[in-house]
Amino acid sequence: MSGLFVTFEGLDRSGKTTQARMLAEALGERALLVREPGGTELGERLRELLKDERVAIEPPVEALLFAAARGQLAAEVIRPALANGRVVVCDRFLDSSLAYQGAARGLGIEAVEAINDFALDGLRPDLTFLLEIDPAAAAQRDGTSDRFEAAGSDFQQAVAAAYRALAERFPERYVRLDATLPVTELHGLIYARVRAALAAGAGSRREALA
Amino acid sequence: MSGLFVTFEGLDRSGKTTQARMLAEALGERALLVREPGGTELGERLRELLKDERVAIEPPVEALLFAAARGQLAAEVIRPALANGRVVVCDRFLDSSLAYQGAARGLGIEAVEAINDFALDGLRPDLTFLLEIDPAAAAQRDGTSDRFEAAGSDFQQAVAAAYRALAERFPERYVRLDATLPVTELHGLIYARVRAALAAGAGSRREALA
Ligand SMILES: Nc1ncnc2c1ncn2[C@@H]1O[C@H](COP(=O)(O)OP(=O)(O)O)[C@@H](O)[C@H]1O
Ligand SMILES: Nc1ncnc2c1ncn2[C@@H]1O[C@H](COP(=O)(O)OP(=O)(O)O)[C@@H](O)[C@H]1O
Ligand SMILES: [Mg+2]
Ligand SMILES: [Mg+2]
Repeated sequence: MSGLFVTFEGLDRSGKTTQARMLAEALGERALLVREPGGTELGERLRELLKDERVAIEPPVEALLFAAARGQLAAEVIRPALANGRVVVCDRFLDSSLAYQGAARGLGIEAVEAINDFALDGLRPDLTFLLEIDPAAAAQRDGTSDRFEAAGSDFQQAVAAAYRALAERFPERYVRLDATLPVTELHGLIYARVRAALAAGAGSRREALA
Repeated sequence: MSGLFVTFEGLDRSGKTTQARMLAEALGERALLVREPGGTELGERLRELLKDERVAIEPPVEALLFAAARGQLAAEVIRPALANGRVVVCDRFLDSSLAYQGAARGLGIEAVEAINDFALDGLRPDLTFLLEIDPAAAAQRDGTSDRFEAAGSDFQQAVAAAYRALAERFPERYVRLDATLPVTELHGLIYARVRAALAAGAGSRREALA
């Protein structure tokens, strides 16, 4: 039995955490829900560091730290779980770094992909759900912005555009969704798509590509 | 007045810390002695993490963390000090990652250089003192191995060979020294070389190349 690697992407407050949790719950024991950065001892320690406002961190250094946390998560948690047939559900992954740091922060998508691949060794999601929402509408929702502070509307628009470009570059794994649909309706679409991928043996396809 | 960037490289117990301290002391207020990883709030926190045996860290992830600490050190400490005309004396720098992780650990010298340059932005030493010693002789000396545990004699030989290759690749900045010479004799050679570089305005050359 081969696993499936599912990621959620989108702006802050687009509904990623809500949908990732609902998907993991619907899948039951077969699912493994992980948050990023975090999910390993190293990742949780780096998460604290990244959130600590007293610690000065240059933008490229921040990108290296996210890549380090993600590489450890891939090696220690994601790859073993996939090998055991689990469905790994990740609340943000590589594409967040490509969109936020590579594109919107201007570090370069290819450069950010290269430092990530240094530790990821080609690991990519089988399915990526992109929750699309107007930045202004997302800002109206309750919640704390989880990683990137309000860096202005231009910045959010740049992130949204970068996500659209990624969806076009990787149509085989991207599923674009209207994040303003009701929560349960979104969940239904997502769950159906995951079950179809499991039925089609998408996990074996992933292994064949690896 | 332009600065000078001096690094010390070599196996554990080759005498880097001893010579770096003596050089900084001889130079007085103009010198800035930094240790790596460390020298910034982020670097010190990463240093703790890297030394904590309870935290699992994959080899490529470790390389990313060293690159992150080094990038922050370069931006926050080294570049500003050089701009102020200081002589920055660094106990290990980029070449340690190239020799230990790139060559001896097998991650690839070019790949390790690429992840470092993502945050270093081309910063390189003006002068690198390579303290050469037979691994067996180094192991006889007092001291705690500071970063890399005794990974066997083949490993140490691979590091030594990688350093020799770097010295051949960068003859304009590398100075190879017999680390078994008496401490004061080594210091005399090093201090003379640094004063010559300062007199020749090596710092301005560095800026011209930047
Ligand atoms: N489809 C939706 N429609 C309306 N509100 C939603 C929807 N999904 C999530 N929310 C609400 O939006 C806020 C942010 O959701 P959350 O899942 O935390 O987003 P993210 O993890 O992307 O930042 C929460 O208050 C949540 O209840
Ligand atoms: N030139 C030398 N000859 C003999 N012993 C030395 C010399 N330089 C340093 N030592 C001793 O070797 C040990 C390791 O020196 P240290 O400067 O800490 O090396 P490193 O920083 O390269 O690990 C110390 O006990 C130091 O006193
Ligand atoms: Mg969230
Ligand atoms: Mg030392």
